[in-house]
Amino acid sequence: LLVVFGMAVAFASIPRITWEHKEVQLVHFHEPNIYNYSALLLSEDTDTLYIGAREAVFAVNALNISQKQHEVYWKVSEDKQAKCAEKGKSKQTECLNYIRVLQPLSATALYVCGTNAFQPVCDHLNLTSFEFLGKNEDGKGRCPFDPAHSYTSIMVDGELYSGTSYNFLGSEPIISRNSSHSPLRTEYAIPWLNEPSFVFADVIRKSSDSTDGEDDKVYFFFTEVSVEYEFMFRVLLPRIARVCKGDQGGLRTLQKKWTSFLKARLICSRQDSGLVFNVLRDVFVLRAPGLDPVFYGLFTPQLNNVGLSAVCAYDLSTVEEVFSQGKYMQSATVEQSHTKWVRYNGPVPTPRPGACIDREVRAANYTSSLNLPDKTLQFVKDHPLMDDSVTPIDNRPKLVKKDVNYTQIVVDRTQALDGTIYDVMFISTDRGVLHKAVNLESDVHIIEETQLFQGPEPVQTLLLSSKKGKRFIYAGSNLGVVQVPLAFCGEHSTCADCVLARDPYCAWSRQTDACVTLQETEDPSSQLIQEMSGDVSSCPDKTKESCRQHFFKYGSTVELKCFQKSNLAQVFWKFQNSVLKVESPKYGLVDGKNLLIFNLSEGDSGVYLCLSEEQVRNKMVSRVVAKHVLEVKHILPRPELPTLP
Amino acid sequence: LLVVFGMAVAFASIPRITWEHKEVQLVHFHEPNIYNYSALLLSEDTDTLYIGAREAVFAVNALNISQKQHEVYWKVSEDKQAKCAEKGKSKQTECLNYIRVLQPLSATALYVCGTNAFQPVCDHLNLTSFEFLGKNEDGKGRCPFDPAHSYTSIMVDGELYSGTSYNFLGSEPIISRNSSHSPLRTEYAIPWLNEPSFVFADVIRKSSDSTDGEDDKVYFFFTEVSVEYEFMFRVLLPRIARVCKGDQGGLRTLQKKWTSFLKARLICSRQDSGLVFNVLRDVFVLRAPGLDPVFYGLFTPQLNNVGLSAVCAYDLSTVEEVFSQGKYMQSATVEQSHTKWVRYNGPVPTPRPGACIDREVRAANYTSSLNLPDKTLQFVKDHPLMDDSVTPIDNRPKLVKKDVNYTQIVVDRTQALDGTIYDVMFISTDRGVLHKAVNLESDVHIIEETQLFQGPEPVQTLLLSSKKGKRFIYAGSNLGVVQVPLAFCGEHSTCADCVLARDPYCAWSRQTDACVTLQETEDPSSQLIQEMSGDVSSCPDKTKESCRQHFFKYGSTVELKCFQKSNLAQVFWKFQNSVLKVESPKYGLVDGKNLLIFNLSEGDSGVYLCLSEEQVRNKMVSRVVAKHVLEVKHILPRPELPTLP
Repeated sequence: LLVVFGMAVAFASIPRITWEHKEVQLVHFHEPNIYNYSALLLSEDTDTLYIGAREAVFAVNALNISQKQHEVYWKVSEDKQAKCAEKGKSKQTECLNYIRVLQPLSATALYVCGTNAFQPVCDHLNLTSFEFLGKNEDGKGRCPFDPAHSYTSIMVDGELYSGTSYNFLGSEPIISRNSSHSPLRTEYAIPWLNEPSFVFADVIRKSSDSTDGEDDKVYFFFTEVSVEYEFMFRVLLPRIARVCKGDQGGLRTLQKKWTSFLKARLICSRQDSGLVFNVLRDVFVLRAPGLDPVFYGLFTPQLNNVGLSAVCAYDLSTVEEVFSQGKYMQSATVEQSHTKWVRYNGPVPTPRPGACIDREVRAANYTSSLNLPDKTLQFVKDHPLMDDSVTPIDNRPKLVKKDVNYTQIVVDRTQALDGTIYDVMFISTDRGVLHKAVNLESDVHIIEETQLFQGPEPVQTLLLSSKKGKRFIYAGSNLGVVQVPLAFCGEHSTCADCVLARDPYCAWSRQTDACVTLQETEDPSSQLIQEMSGDVSSCPDKTKESCRQHFFKYGSTVELKCFQKSNLAQVFWKFQNSVLKVESPKYGLVDGKNLLIFNLSEGDSGVYLCLSEEQVRNKMVSRVVAKHVLEVKHILPRPELPTLP
Repeated sequence: LLVVFGMAVAFASIPRITWEHKEVQLVHFHEPNIYNYSALLLSEDTDTLYIGAREAVFAVNALNISQKQHEVYWKVSEDKQAKCAEKGKSKQTECLNYIRVLQPLSATALYVCGTNAFQPVCDHLNLTSFEFLGKNEDGKGRCPFDPAHSYTSIMVDGELYSGTSYNFLGSEPIISRNSSHSPLRTEYAIPWLNEPSFVFADVIRKSSDSTDGEDDKVYFFFTEVSVEYEFMFRVLLPRIARVCKGDQGGLRTLQKKWTSFLKARLICSRQDSGLVFNVLRDVFVLRAPGLDPVFYGLFTPQLNNVGLSAVCAYDLSTVEEVFSQGKYMQSATVEQSHTKWVRYNGPVPTPRPGACIDREVRAANYTSSLNLPDKTLQFVKDHPLMDDSVTPIDNRPKLVKKDVNYTQIVVDRTQALDGTIYDVMFISTDRGVLHKAVNLESDVHIIEETQLFQGPEPVQTLLLSSKKGKRFIYAGSNLGVVQVPLAFCGEHSTCADCVLARDPYCAWSRQTDACVTLQETEDPSSQLIQEMSGDVSSCPDKTKESCRQHFFKYGSTVELKCFQKSNLAQVFWKFQNSVLKVESPKYGLVDGKNLLIFNLSEGDSGVYLCLSEEQVRNKMVSRVVAKHVLEVKHILPRPELPTLP
């Protein structure tokens, strides 16, 4: 009979500023009758963005994607389409060719695969002629059959590593290396892959100063059905798996299979408040000079999902420690019928199962996975799952947001004016909005949100250009691609607006009296003002109050405007230095900002100030946003009072 | 790289009508400096409500709780309070006497227990003199030590059955019968009770026409830590447990312990959408003539709890089937170290472990639990948990609500005018609000919400009077008790308002031209209109439009009022039969309802209609709510135009 509810959780607040679709300048690309712009590939050298859509590939100018450079169409043959439709698939949608793989093959060619009416096929795209070579390679295991199925792939040194389904039904998941001399794949067994949804893959190269002769590693990210947990129903789990580039498979055991496939659970939760995020949606690898790569994961919950999303980040070293030193899981049979997965505490064979061949293993005379002992191979075949999990940086999510379904994430590491490093997260939603968030001390600050498309379409792909200078984010959806700058500094018209944005990309220039993009300005830093704390005290005193004088006639109504973009600010009005009660019959508020004054009389003449109050960290920043001087002219004798009902 | 989000879930919509605290007539009771009015007991015979608060018990008139009849104070002695404070407890709050048990003992006495500064004590309260008898019985096992600990109790034939903690720390949970001749308790073992939070207890009497000689049974409801599920962290589970009244304990095994203690999991989830409610908050037993009791449970999730609540209902027969025919669970050890709970498939001893002694068992010469065979007793000692779970009626929640934390529930079964039976749920929130909800076909309709207290205090107790005629709900909080009628029919001023409320308690009387309470009216049913479908077509034609005529002067501003209580209705305005665009500079909306017309001119003269549109089931009900006739008088020559900035 006692009621105790969980602790309040610090959810990220709403975005401070909302940019409507028409309010900021975005560059769009789309072709009539072409849909599903889901594959994006950027060539920074040539400033070209390659776009894979349904039945077409485009090359556009990466600095202005509305400028199309090349196009090539890749349609399904009539015959194949008919066969596909015979199998009960939709001719108008499913039985088309969805580009799912778009990878660089050489300086002059791309490797492209499409679903091709449930008969996946791959080809080489010559970048000079922008024509397909007509190789017609079997795409099975590289590209899904069904455009609705999950997939991921990455080209590493001319060999395609992919995670997808291997058959028409999508029931046989596979992580494979498609190589002419050493093709490898996963075992088709539940402990290896249990109904995975593939999310992302990337290669992490061995560090150049490595002395232990380690290997390059390819990481796969997916969500799959848990074998180790039992809840009231199927529990999904986010996973990270990795294989070694040098893997050649086993000689007898695990022949043409990975000998280095290990997987572990990614943790993204706040146990104190019962928040569990166990469905992985997207991953971004943040790379920066002098920094080990950081994996940023975007998550939603499987249970009680009512518009919750979270971001968790993982250090590469934490991941590596789990794989190289963690305990393994094993299955055990209980009471004849139940299979339970528990921590394996027995002896582990040497060389360590699933490890890459490094200097030490080589020294023990195992020069390739082909001559690894059977004991090691049998162990990794039976124990691909680690018992230890990968915990996120700071052991908690970087961001938890309510009432939004995030779809994709990219992260940019940038340096503020004072030298502080910020990791800025750009996260898209299923309603066509891009959020830009940054961790400021212990808080998450969502700097702004941008409506990328006219309608609320889900963002399917996000890509961040990493070139110096003019940088953009590219977002693909079903209807087109949009190019977005990393910041809209120029939209902030006053120093206070510029500083209160708390945007690490923006600073106020004393020289030009404008909010400028830090990376693009040539002003000396002494002439720039940026305070990530939101402290506006360094701003020049001459607050540009939009001071306006008005003359009004007796008995009429006036609306005084107040321009304030911040969604976090409260607006209130002062008249002759005392706060106005807008709930009285004399006054009204329009849009929560503009002041209505009814039935003007001489007493209403005077100075009106619109003030905004905004909580920045623990301080309340109060400032004058607009100033109006009103003069009421008694041009007529006082008429009879109107009957207000 | 594919994004698929869960199916949309049908959450209950917002309450149709909001009654602010001062808007409806509620009766309050509170005494200065008395807090925690958490124990309520109703004597229907004498129309007396007994209220147990901190250090006080009151008797008030149940028909008007502001009329206090008796009071008695029960303070902690200085000495006990000092001792309690020495143990590190707060002298001002914890070291006081919180009344936790308030049960009827006889026609002239109540049984009362209090926490008594962490030394729980019980006493008899003489109802004639309204004085304690000074029995000073040890309250250990009947009443918690700590006012923050959970507890429940029920008096059955003069013996108190209770669920609480047995020690100072609250670490030893117990379900016990406090009886002089046959005290019984639970084993102190994890499989019996694993950190339970007690929620509710009640007795279900054997049916009067029972032929199998069954026993009365006492049911306990609680939330405890799961032993059978493994998730990322401790999983809580809602449980129902039951014991038999005739239980005498075992002779050797289970001596002075329950031989009839069995427990099972209550399921409240929507698997299709991943909604899992595994924390039980409150239970109400709905009893009605000719109906087996129905258990209504109020739940919240443990995971991702962001203001979700649900109601699930359970048939007694479903509960009984699980206990009398379900499979048991057993623990097994895996790989030396892990304990796993799995379904027990082996042979079950006879008599069936945990069953009450019925005619059949008696016929086999087991006349009492004292002579049950050791095999049966040992089995129930080791297997108190059923493998089968109790599924809710219709296999889904009756109601799922977002953005609210429900705390308590009572349910009333009522008959509408057409004879249809409705179970009306009254559910309180942690912010002092009472929701009134009813299942209409497949939808949940929240008829109204009432702000019970001035502030947003959590409702701790709800009690429903079951007497015929004037019926009330009593709600207890930290600051007082409030008495609420079951319906506010009289607040609906038109037939359409009365019918659209879709409140089974309310009907429109043609005779008195008023919305009346069905149970209180003496009008013949032929003179009453009630359409639970919301069909207003039977309402008399003469819609009382609040038709008002106004005269206004040229250039001024006018506000036309429109009174519409429904939160589900959209209001729009028509002028000369065409819909007004209120977003134009000429018009404005106040509170989303009232129309502002700026800068009146002759062209604005005419008829203005305020219409409301409300979706009722799949139909849109549109009606005129207000009608204004405006005449603009051009009393002056047109003056110069005002400068609108």
